[in-house]
Amino acid sequence: MGLTLGELACQVGAVLQGDALISVQRVMTLQNAKAGDISFLSNPRYRRHLVNTQAAAVILGADDAAYCPVPTLVSENPYLAFAKVVAILNPVVPSPRGVHPTAMVDTGAVVHESAWIGPMSVVEAGARIGAEVVVGASCVVGRDSSIGAGSRLAANVTVCHGVQIGERVVLHQGAVIGSDGFGLAKDGERWFKIPQVGGVVIGNDVEVGANSTVDRGTLEDTVIEEDVRIDNQVQIAHNCFIGAHTAIAGCVGIAGSARIGRRCTIAGAVGIAGHLDICDDVHITAMSMVVQPITEPGVYSSNLPAKPNRQWRRNVVRFHQLDEMARRLLTAEQQLAALLERGS
Amino acid sequence: MGLTLGELACQVGAVLQGDALISVQRVMTLQNAKAGDISFLSNPRYRRHLVNTQAAAVILGADDAAYCPVPTLVSENPYLAFAKVVAILNPVVPSPRGVHPTAMVDTGAVVHESAWIGPMSVVEAGARIGAEVVVGASCVVGRDSSIGAGSRLAANVTVCHGVQIGERVVLHQGAVIGSDGFGLAKDGERWFKIPQVGGVVIGNDVEVGANSTVDRGTLEDTVIEEDVRIDNQVQIAHNCFIGAHTAIAGCVGIAGSARIGRRCTIAGAVGIAGHLDICDDVHITAMSMVVQPITEPGVYSSNLPAKPNRQWRRNVVRFHQLDEMARRLLTAEQQLAALLERGS
Amino acid sequence: MGLTLGELACQVGAVLQGDALISVQRVMTLQNAKAGDISFLSNPRYRRHLVNTQAAAVILGADDAAYCPVPTLVSENPYLAFAKVVAILNPVVPSPRGVHPTAMVDTGAVVHESAWIGPMSVVEAGARIGAEVVVGASCVVGRDSSIGAGSRLAANVTVCHGVQIGERVVLHQGAVIGSDGFGLAKDGERWFKIPQVGGVVIGNDVEVGANSTVDRGTLEDTVIEEDVRIDNQVQIAHNCFIGAHTAIAGCVGIAGSARIGRRCTIAGAVGIAGHLDICDDVHITAMSMVVQPITEPGVYSSNLPAKPNRQWRRNVVRFHQLDEMARRLLTAEQQLAALLERGS
Repeated sequence: MGLTLGELACQVGAVLQGDALISVQRVMTLQNAKAGDISFLSNPRYRRHLVNTQAAAVILGADDAAYCPVPTLVSENPYLAFAKVVAILNPVVPSPRGVHPTAMVDTGAVVHESAWIGPMSVVEAGARIGAEVVVGASCVVGRDSSIGAGSRLAANVTVCHGVQIGERVVLHQGAVIGSDGFGLAKDGERWFKIPQVGGVVIGNDVEVGANSTVDRGTLEDTVIEEDVRIDNQVQIAHNCFIGAHTAIAGCVGIAGSARIGRRCTIAGAVGIAGHLDICDDVHITAMSMVVQPITEPGVYSSNLPAKPNRQWRRNVVRFHQLDEMARRLLTAEQQLAALLERGS
Repeated sequence: MGLTLGELACQVGAVLQGDALISVQRVMTLQNAKAGDISFLSNPRYRRHLVNTQAAAVILGADDAAYCPVPTLVSENPYLAFAKVVAILNPVVPSPRGVHPTAMVDTGAVVHESAWIGPMSVVEAGARIGAEVVVGASCVVGRDSSIGAGSRLAANVTVCHGVQIGERVVLHQGAVIGSDGFGLAKDGERWFKIPQVGGVVIGNDVEVGANSTVDRGTLEDTVIEEDVRIDNQVQIAHNCFIGAHTAIAGCVGIAGSARIGRRCTIAGAVGIAGHLDICDDVHITAMSMVVQPITEPGVYSSNLPAKPNRQWRRNVVRFHQLDEMARRLLTAEQQLAALLERGS
Repeated sequence: MGLTLGELACQVGAVLQGDALISVQRVMTLQNAKAGDISFLSNPRYRRHLVNTQAAAVILGADDAAYCPVPTLVSENPYLAFAKVVAILNPVVPSPRGVHPTAMVDTGAVVHESAWIGPMSVVEAGARIGAEVVVGASCVVGRDSSIGAGSRLAANVTVCHGVQIGERVVLHQGAVIGSDGFGLAKDGERWFKIPQVGGVVIGNDVEVGANSTVDRGTLEDTVIEEDVRIDNQVQIAHNCFIGAHTAIAGCVGIAGSARIGRRCTIAGAVGIAGHLDICDDVHITAMSMVVQPITEPGVYSSNLPAKPNRQWRRNVVRFHQLDEMARRLLTAEQQLAALLERGS
């Protein structure tokens, strides 16, 4: 399908500079766009590709518009305008409705007539599948779980028993919602497994990435509020609470009973210890470790950037001598002070 | 179901202070417990909630009992007593027996009559499924593998061929036991894949978390001894040996041929290099990296806690100058020594 | 099956020292080899086991041959020779051909007559499955994807729609190829999901480990070139490019639009930031974080090895004072210089 620049500008609320009747079919990067493509510029890293782009039009901010050789859709938030244009030009493929003949829906489950249960999927007793829900191939929806209207489960997703999934939620391939938390009590040298009898409540518009895991609560529920976005391979332990609009990048691990505020961003491979609170509007940079509560909004870090190994190793040796160095520095300062006093 | 405090105290070996005939139905946290709930206090972090709890009774240690406004079950190990009470009040839902009509059990497999093979699951030739085993939905048990009595596979679990699983083992959703190790030999610039012909042997009472992976050995077996507890998203590479009663938290990666002792605890997102030994009773704190053998029991660390980014960045710059700083400190000390000698 | 040392030496291009007619059945480690086994020595760590080995023969380098009490296969690359002997003595079990009766192949899919589609697997419309391909149990191959000749999908693998897999590719259990990238645009405090309309192109001879994930591109394709080897639990984000012959160990996370060169090795749990280039022949040590482009071949690091916790904590305290220490050192140096000048 194609749309004119005029239609797109109208739909995404951008200001068109150029011929409103030009039609575009596809969104493409500045360097690889061809005739019939619309492109975008939001990351300054790619600004150098603007002057030579072959795109039919470019979505960008007002500051960049003057340098663009082709028609522009000028937006205050060009990345959002770009995202909306991608969505407009790539509408979701409509799903069939009904239950695939190879799926197994328990007679005690309730599946809305507008929903789709894909091949080899299993829906257990007591589960409720809402309107327009799409359950992909080889998924399992456990007993007494509910999937809200418009949600989509990709292939091989596991929703365990007693889990509540909101509306328009997207669960990607291999995601597991409601696995047992890692609850163990010491009994001499042996471990005693604490039954995990809480559930998981996931709000509307949440996304959980491929092969990510969200554990059920021990006694109460693990809670993921609305519009939380979780990337691939993320682990969220039992009893966590994740506030609305927080985004969590790939490979993050969050330990049990951590409570994370609203509008936080947690970059890749961050680790967050259990039983602590992080307030709203906190941003944690990649691979950092949070072991203390954070009570002030802001950016927090504890990652070290890679350097050539030879240089790195020298500094690591010194790191392991730091306390000694600090003591030696203090001694030197004291000796100096004495000398200076004597000299004065 | 409900039980009286008297019955619970008796079953978990706690000392009851209060009315033995009070009946409780549910275990709940101190802050959210209501009438009919029993609660617990073991983490001092939550002690402040004790005085106002609405619980009908609280499990706790002798030191805290005096401050409790309601009947108590006093235990030397209140966390274990709590765990046992959760288990008593939440008995495992009995599983059906037999093979679900949509499952595919090879005629060359042996399934005990008291076992359950869930919908869409596959049991390949030569596999042996023991008494009271529960195989959840959409699992695959590979050829010539065995699952010991009382073990439970949650949904979407993969047990590869030639894997031995002990008794009362729990494999959570998406876990993979017996995947190929990452064995490669250099052949010029190309890689030559080393066939992984060993197996995996998992002892009794082991738990493997959701989406965790345990690779098969190259020539011999990867071994997980009894009562080892593994959380979600953990990677255990080929030829590893994990000693009994060791617990491994989420997102840990253990490289090939590492040998870990008994009763160790490995916190979240730790990395352990290959071909090294860690002795018994070692505790590694979260996000640390172990690259050398550990021969003494104790606590080991190499993690850095997050700080405000501005402060962090200043220190990181200095970190990369550490070796130079150390040399400058030495020079200053030598000059000082000369001055002091001259002055004396 | 067994083979004589003469046949093996010939097939792997090694020089036999000893009786060519000795037959061996199995490859085993030096310490555990028994009569009828062939062993190998390539990692010097295991050299001490050579003199007492019970193996019938040992594959090793010329330098070690003199110390070997049994016949030897001497090779310039003993690890490769070992790998080839393992492959020769453990030929791949031939797969059946056809479609298992419980599999669901869409009538719009094309499956080569020599391929195998395992039980409970789903092949969607438009998918093309090449010659000698083996699709294991419970896999999903999405619409319009193609799997090249000789490739093998282990159990529970998900290949999403519109993904191109080359020849002789191995996808291990639970791997997901073509999941949505984590593409979000801010719309006030809410997130707007950017449809991910690119694909994934995987070259020949690639291996992707158990529960690893490779996201599809946003607009263009995520590209994994030939002979790239990826271990378990690795996350490769949208729009990444991984050059030929690069090996990526377990638990690595690579953020979006990173471009990694040829013949790189990325050790376990490394994190690589998005939108950067790493040139050919770069080696990154375990648990390091790369946040800047790398333009020179070599070894790069930013990991810290674990130490006893008490010692570690003292140094961490100093780390957080480093900038202050550096300033104090500078002051001391200036005072010293003044004293020295005065004294001279």
